Amino acid sequence: MALTDEQKAEMAEAAAQRTPTARPVSAGLEAMLATAIPVLDHGFVRVVDYMGDDAAVVQAARVSYGRGTKAANEDRGLIRYLMRHRHSTPFEMCEIKYHIKLPIFVARQWIRHRTANVNEYSARYSVMDKEFYIPAQAQLAAQSSVNRQGRGDVLEGEEAAHVLRLLRDDASRNYDHYIEMLNEDEAGTTLSAEKSGLARELARMNLTLNTYTQWYWKTDLHNLLHFLSLRADAHAQYEIRVYAEAMIDTVKAWVPHCYEAFRDYRMGAVTLSAQMLAIVKRLLAGEVVEQPASGLSKREWRELMETLGRE
Amino acid sequence: MALTDEQKAEMAEAAAQRTPTARPVSAGLEAMLATAIPVLDHGFVRVVDYMGDDAAVVQAARVSYGRGTKAANEDRGLIRYLMRHRHSTPFEMCEIKYHIKLPIFVARQWIRHRTANVNEYSARYSVMDKEFYIPAQAQLAAQSSVNRQGRGDVLEGEEAAHVLRLLRDDASRNYDHYIEMLNEDEAGTTLSAEKSGLARELARMNLTLNTYTQWYWKTDLHNLLHFLSLRADAHAQYEIRVYAEAMIDTVKAWVPHCYEAFRDYRMGAVTLSAQMLAIVKRLLAGEVVEQPASGLSKREWRELMETLGRE
Amino acid sequence: MALTDEQKAEMAEAAAQRTPTARPVSAGLEAMLATAIPVLDHGFVRVVDYMGDDAAVVQAARVSYGRGTKAANEDRGLIRYLMRHRHSTPFEMCEIKYHIKLPIFVARQWIRHRTANVNEYSARYSVMDKEFYIPAQAQLAAQSSVNRQGRGDVLEGEEAAHVLRLLRDDASRNYDHYIEMLNEDEAGTTLSAEKSGLARELARMNLTLNTYTQWYWKTDLHNLLHFLSLRADAHAQYEIRVYAEAMIDTVKAWVPHCYEAFRDYRMGAVTLSAQMLAIVKRLLAGEVVEQPASGLSKREWRELMETLGRE
Amino acid sequence: MALTDEQKAEMAEAAAQRTPTARPVSAGLEAMLATAIPVLDHGFVRVVDYMGDDAAVVQAARVSYGRGTKAANEDRGLIRYLMRHRHSTPFEMCEIKYHIKLPIFVARQWIRHRTANVNEYSARYSVMDKEFYIPAQAQLAAQSSVNRQGRGDVLEGEEAAHVLRLLRDDASRNYDHYIEMLNEDEAGTTLSAEKSGLARELARMNLTLNTYTQWYWKTDLHNLLHFLSLRADAHAQYEIRVYAEAMIDTVKAWVPHCYEAFRDYRMGAVTLSAQMLAIVKRLLAGEVVEQPASGLSKREWRELMETLGRE
Repeated sequence: MALTDEQKAEMAEAAAQRTPTARPVSAGLEAMLATAIPVLDHGFVRVVDYMGDDAAVVQAARVSYGRGTKAANEDRGLIRYLMRHRHSTPFEMCEIKYHIKLPIFVARQWIRHRTANVNEYSARYSVMDKEFYIPAQAQLAAQSSVNRQGRGDVLEGEEAAHVLRLLRDDASRNYDHYIEMLNEDEAGTTLSAEKSGLARELARMNLTLNTYTQWYWKTDLHNLLHFLSLRADAHAQYEIRVYAEAMIDTVKAWVPHCYEAFRDYRMGAVTLSAQMLAIVKRLLAGEVVEQPASGLSKREWRELMETLGRE
Repeated sequence: MALTDEQKAEMAEAAAQRTPTARPVSAGLEAMLATAIPVLDHGFVRVVDYMGDDAAVVQAARVSYGRGTKAANEDRGLIRYLMRHRHSTPFEMCEIKYHIKLPIFVARQWIRHRTANVNEYSARYSVMDKEFYIPAQAQLAAQSSVNRQGRGDVLEGEEAAHVLRLLRDDASRNYDHYIEMLNEDEAGTTLSAEKSGLARELARMNLTLNTYTQWYWKTDLHNLLHFLSLRADAHAQYEIRVYAEAMIDTVKAWVPHCYEAFRDYRMGAVTLSAQMLAIVKRLLAGEVVEQPASGLSKREWRELMETLGRE
Repeated sequence: MALTDEQKAEMAEAAAQRTPTARPVSAGLEAMLATAIPVLDHGFVRVVDYMGDDAAVVQAARVSYGRGTKAANEDRGLIRYLMRHRHSTPFEMCEIKYHIKLPIFVARQWIRHRTANVNEYSARYSVMDKEFYIPAQAQLAAQSSVNRQGRGDVLEGEEAAHVLRLLRDDASRNYDHYIEMLNEDEAGTTLSAEKSGLARELARMNLTLNTYTQWYWKTDLHNLLHFLSLRADAHAQYEIRVYAEAMIDTVKAWVPHCYEAFRDYRMGAVTLSAQMLAIVKRLLAGEVVEQPASGLSKREWRELMETLGRE
Repeated sequence: MALTDEQKAEMAEAAAQRTPTARPVSAGLEAMLATAIPVLDHGFVRVVDYMGDDAAVVQAARVSYGRGTKAANEDRGLIRYLMRHRHSTPFEMCEIKYHIKLPIFVARQWIRHRTANVNEYSARYSVMDKEFYIPAQAQLAAQSSVNRQGRGDVLEGEEAAHVLRLLRDDASRNYDHYIEMLNEDEAGTTLSAEKSGLARELARMNLTLNTYTQWYWKTDLHNLLHFLSLRADAHAQYEIRVYAEAMIDTVKAWVPHCYEAFRDYRMGAVTLSAQMLAIVKRLLAGEVVEQPASGLSKREWRELMETLGRE
């Protein structure tokens, strides 16, 4: 379930061949069409197809706001205005389709975003490959330290090596038993003529959640940006964040004006509650405000101070 | 709000210019990209952009059903299988974007299909054009006779002419009052310096439901086919059916295998209830079955007999 | 199409009768079930049914975040946390169904929110009532002055009276012609035995966009709050805003903790772009920042200053 | 992650306590609210909440089709008509919320139905329980030799016992290593003060796909019936079908008229393609038709003959 020969051939063909089209073309993204961007130890993200470009967003906004957008005579400015004021429908006019290879536990998080079209490799019909995600040792340390805050844990040295051994051995053994139960190999060839094999739809239950799967995933630009704003965020799990980051590179190549507006008004933006805004105003007026009298909970106060870069 | 000069220029450019792309190209649909298909008296349908082709459906099915689809070594057969067994996700991998001009009462029916992206011309921000749908006289007769079944109505001659006069006069007068209330013309130029104008968002309420609007409408192939199966159906109102029929021509040009499967397994298909199927079996066994003993209501019996072409 | 006798009977019955249920009950909302809240001149909003309460949001969050939410041992605090950090799925666990009567041009804006279930009164099958929205004179002035900013328009006195006459006369005349074309009255009774009538699906096109329609509209709490945040906003058109405001009262009665969090973190909240946040930090540090050197466009600068309450 | 004490208390409370409501109440479903229906070896389905009943479907249809539905003066007949003609929106007016415990590989199939609201127990924030699905021996089917997706003969004797041992041992060992890596037990208590633990979000990847998870799953009646028609079908995998069957029992108790129409027009219905219908007509006319001259592929011919109960 790495890139199959068929998939490689399809990519090579795309790289070699150009067909004329009357549709809008994004030069930046065309250059990426024949490439699979590596993610994690065995995963990848590749753009299979797309529709529209920065101009398609502008075109849709102009039909919506009609003659009223004449004023905004510049595409970049209009796109920034739309993003800032959360006018989302023009961004829905662009569409992109990815081919993604990812561990099952990442796929389980990802699929929660419902406004996308998905076709996943089916372990009900086919035999899975022997490929698992095993974290880099530095990740064990980093994630332990963040996620187990206050417990002073940093998983290193022999302890970390032990964890990696467990992950590797368990995934490997379970896969081998999976093949044994199936009584067939990855290519579907029967292994022993004397045995029956267990149905694929049942045998798959023995696999571990770090087994790699793959899918085609297609969505519009508005929903893609929403997905990326959540999954490229510092609070997202590292293993999905690296996919989001790879996809942000494709957005940058595809719709540079939208990307820039997204970076400024979404990724880098902050939201202040009514109470937080009131405090900012008081601080700007030179008042001294402290948490107990602020009306904010301790947690919110800390969030606000972090946002404002104070302590 | 007919095609603007900008839109005509955009279409002419598309017609004249071809850019190389590494994406799949549908030769049949490319030829239609610079054309607006006329519908009703002032409406049209034109394809603005698309993504994918027959092969994209097959590609998605193959990743889903994996090695299991090797058997179906022929694209056409696989597509027919998917359509017959309602495996809908592979058809979601193709996307199409239309620019459509249509009367508001048609737009109101259309928008009920929620799984599409829409950007509509906004009468809140812009001034509407003076364009209304006035039915052909033959339509008055046909629709009256179908819709008022049993009342023997066929609207013809002077009666029909009177109706058309009312429709034309009322739409026209209301539009003129709309412009008068706005105190500005279609181009937004103030008409009388001495008068105040009503807000566009309010003035629009004086327009009639046959006023033309326009929108960009984008959807995936699965949802498009669902829309077409309902709206190209004989029970759909004539005024939306003609749009659906124009769009079916674009599907035929775009994804010929999918179109053919759609025609055979959706448009031309019938569904029999458990009870209806039991009766068909009894009829095939040579039994004489009559409505009273059939277990079907009179209405269902009549539907079944029509389906089977009996009386 | 005002409340029918059947609907009034249904409401009276609901008011009179209480059936025991094992489901969560919102005492505040139960009290509103038999009431139609009047909106505009002939419209209304009434709650027909609902599912869930504040505790249902908490319950869903707890299964999601599992033992991890033990810390948040207080429902109100957990709901505020969820709202602040845009964890939207727990709010999807509550559902509400409204019966709404509204002008068609308002319905056309409303229906753009696609994540709701809708059943609208059909002018294809039934005859519409003679009811139109005619704005209060104060609204003509207010909306003209806001929407035609810079042109100094305020529609008052005889000019306003003239507009109201046009709206009233055109709607009324078009309705009368509608009935004449149908050759039947609101109850479906044929008016003249000697005449043929036009099909309802065609005759309706003569009606004006301020004609009242009605529908059942059902959605989950998350999508309802999103709808309300857009439509109760100062930028929304007055005629839809008053519906949103009536619905906010039902939310307040139904899920008081969610309402309070919504008010603080959505309705009263502001979003600052990366660039805006940088400026706030500089201002807090005592720096003098002016628009030209701020990196913000004039428009953005003005928006920021308004947000911060400076000039 | 079996029913927690909190959940049991909540159910007992629901069973014991009845609050008066002015909303529609389904007597049949009320009786099921305090019950968890057991499914598979450790799973269950329980109804947590619902909204609407058969009458709510009728109410919505009547506002949609207005006075036009007066003819259908009987609720049951109207519901059957709506189901038969795929008028789906009235069925969207009912909503139901389930609490479901299910193996992860079943959850992965289930989640593909996107039109539902879901809150799943999160292994990122909490520790999973030691519970796996181990099939009953009668369910240990071999891979079907005819049908790639299907199950063939049941594995027997020592082969079956061996498979069950592998499944049990692997799931169990992987779970124990999961706990070891976490260095904490199911309740979150640290096991060894001298060791560091791995982050929960990482450790979970060692679990097998038959580990049980749980979620709240909420959907409207139309989408529920669509889900059930696919998942209670003979082609669905046994492990999801048993959940669908348990849920069909809840539908039967909740909306008996809708259930009956669903059974007749969906579960028991068949769809004939244009070509198949033509053959049925020829057969009814007494013609002898054989596959080669039928215009159907061998596969389609076989499907048709099965449908008609011939050979």
